[in-house]
Amino acid sequence: VAKRLEKFKTTIFTQMSSLAIKHGAINLGQGFPNFDGPDFVKEAAIQAIRDGKNQYARGYGVPDLNSAVAERFKKDTGLVVDPEKEITVTSGCTEAIAATMLGLINPGDEVILFAPFYDSYEATLSMAGAEIKCVTLRPPDFSIPIDELKSVVSKNTRAILINTPHNPTGKMFNRDELNAIASLCIENDVLVFSDEVYEKLAFEMDHISIASLPGMYERTVTMNSLGKTFSLTGWKIGWAIAPPHLTWGIRQAHSFLTFATSTPMQFAAATAIRAPDSYYEELRRDYMAKKNILIEGLKSVGFTVFSSSGTYFVVVDHTPFGKENDVAFCEYLIKEVGVVAIPTSVFYLNPEEGKNLVRFTFCKDEETLKSAVDRMKKKL
Amino acid sequence: VAKRLEKFKTTIFTQMSSLAIKHGAINLGQGFPNFDGPDFVKEAAIQAIRDGKNQYARGYGVPDLNSAVAERFKKDTGLVVDPEKEITVTSGCTEAIAATMLGLINPGDEVILFAPFYDSYEATLSMAGAEIKCVTLRPPDFSIPIDELKSVVSKNTRAILINTPHNPTGKMFNRDELNAIASLCIENDVLVFSDEVYEKLAFEMDHISIASLPGMYERTVTMNSLGKTFSLTGWKIGWAIAPPHLTWGIRQAHSFLTFATSTPMQFAAATAIRAPDSYYEELRRDYMAKKNILIEGLKSVGFTVFSSSGTYFVVVDHTPFGKENDVAFCEYLIKEVGVVAIPTSVFYLNPEEGKNLVRFTFCKDEETLKSAVDRMKKKL
Ligand SMILES: CSCCC(=O)C(=O)O
Ligand SMILES: CSCCC(=O)C(=O)O
Repeated sequence: VAKRLEKFKTTIFTQMSSLAIKHGAINLGQGFPNFDGPDFVKEAAIQAIRDGKNQYARGYGVPDLNSAVAERFKKDTGLVVDPEKEITVTSGCTEAIAATMLGLINPGDEVILFAPFYDSYEATLSMAGAEIKCVTLRPPDFSIPIDELKSVVSKNTRAILINTPHNPTGKMFNRDELNAIASLCIENDVLVFSDEVYEKLAFEMDHISIASLPGMYERTVTMNSLGKTFSLTGWKIGWAIAPPHLTWGIRQAHSFLTFATSTPMQFAAATAIRAPDSYYEELRRDYMAKKNILIEGLKSVGFTVFSSSGTYFVVVDHTPFGKENDVAFCEYLIKEVGVVAIPTSVFYLNPEEGKNLVRFTFCKDEETLKSAVDRMKKKL
Repeated sequence: VAKRLEKFKTTIFTQMSSLAIKHGAINLGQGFPNFDGPDFVKEAAIQAIRDGKNQYARGYGVPDLNSAVAERFKKDTGLVVDPEKEITVTSGCTEAIAATMLGLINPGDEVILFAPFYDSYEATLSMAGAEIKCVTLRPPDFSIPIDELKSVVSKNTRAILINTPHNPTGKMFNRDELNAIASLCIENDVLVFSDEVYEKLAFEMDHISIASLPGMYERTVTMNSLGKTFSLTGWKIGWAIAPPHLTWGIRQAHSFLTFATSTPMQFAAATAIRAPDSYYEELRRDYMAKKNILIEGLKSVGFTVFSSSGTYFVVVDHTPFGKENDVAFCEYLIKEVGVVAIPTSVFYLNPEEGKNLVRFTFCKDEETLKSAVDRMKKKL
């Protein structure tokens, strides 16, 4: 294996999902729904396949999807972007992240992450040869320690990566925090890479795209995807929205990472994104109900539950149950209780910082959530 | 844009396909069929979508596809590989190439390419920080200059990338050439990355996978995809077959480039790959007919046509028509004749070497091929 990837292990999601299958455990680990996406989107994919939309798409996206993304972005943020010059369709947000890092970051550039962070950020920054600087968000509220953030910005800082709503904590960056980040970026000529895949799963406050703050669009890459919003995580359609000079770098990397993304799925994605507002409202309502079931359940089991404003994840402190760390707790939970959660230490540069915390997802039907809670009540 | 991608332009395929649309020209440039893939494969995708196979696939492939690839590889090469440990499903062969380079090549490693070469090889090697050494295949027969090849192998050589059947020339590496490459690799402890996406489009001789030569499997990454064999270039399903120690590096890179590939398309791909031999025979027969139409046509137009043993491409010398180079010729061809071809200079480290050659594809219905020839006859 090349040195740039030496330190990484099999992703925790893959590890935990195979353990779930092996032990017949209820999988509240990896974030994929155990219910299906909406019929109107599935039918649009079927139609595209039948209609012969089966050859290479234009590298940066089929025109109709680029337009649909631009329309939705305008509705959500008020920003008008050129679908031809400022949007790149990718194979999931994971590829958008990789293409952004490899397309825009040079060896030695410093990039700031907030820990805990999604594992691909660190790995793709390593591929790009970046220096990672890390600021930790701490329980109970995981708010941004602005002074700490300021102290890690240097003249070599090229970008700050943010993720709101935030995986794994469910924290949403509020307006004050985003304003503070924005000022810092503008003062220091720093880019923002903003992963907003859980944007439509915002429960306690409105989602704000940092690109919409004054002076920010020109220095922001906004990344998003279809999977979470349409319960179709396996379709792997994502996109990056960025001003033309940044889009150029992203597209160059994308061209050589995958060249183009599944054509029929792109047509279906365009249909999906144009869903009426009622679709999004219903999604949010459904997830609110699931969230309440899981959170009340976890509390009743005896966990310290940290509040989750968005995403379909919630983080808890497992220490009431006496295991030495998050990995040991998750192992016990799988083998003795029959439930899968994700240990959070893998989301920190310094794993110690995550040793008390584990993540559960509530992107499962209510029955499943209740059974998981029942198992924990009985056996923890 | 990051330095690693600075020297690259919009891929020639994207450039030429948009010019084709703009000028209403017949597109014999980018290699995508203008006919559809087989119904049994499309129906399998539709079934998978309907059956709710719409969430994240296992990162390295849905088990059934890994098995189908292993079965087919055994049939084709006699090699028995472990679908769980030696096959990685990727988002097209392009991603398999990127993951191989980023997963296995360190900065400063030397990798040998044969020019002309597919553009993503150079770009992904640049992402990996490799030193490229290049050996040129020359017309009329594009055979491997073994002594030249020997002379570029050094103690820093990490891999030789081969592509057979070869894009853009249609050359197939014969047994003597492959044996010579194999000896060189074994003597010098060098890997082979073998792009075999046109494997089933072998007309004049049998395709040989270098992995099947004695001592070679353990040092070879064999890359392939669904697109060309099933006329579904837009589905973007590819794979890499390699021994476990190499697969580990490929999977690590893949995990963080795209994580996983479209789930329903993977199920359909498994069905496709298990097609009866008659499917493959018919495909080959159809393409033989197309190839003859195009080659006879190009000869009658007045080109010097180099023989193509495989792929759906053929390379010609355009100099009888008096344009100063391949790019100028292709521009004239689009604007004045209404036909798109691909200039080959972009496939060389030294563009001068390709200035007499342009590539045409015959992955179009016979009508289209004939119309293109007619246009050229009238206007060239
Ligand atoms: C490849 S897992 C993607 C992210 C997610 O769903 C998770 O964090 O569980
Ligand atoms: C992305 S284009 C892939 C290869 C091909 O079809 C071509 O060489 O034209």
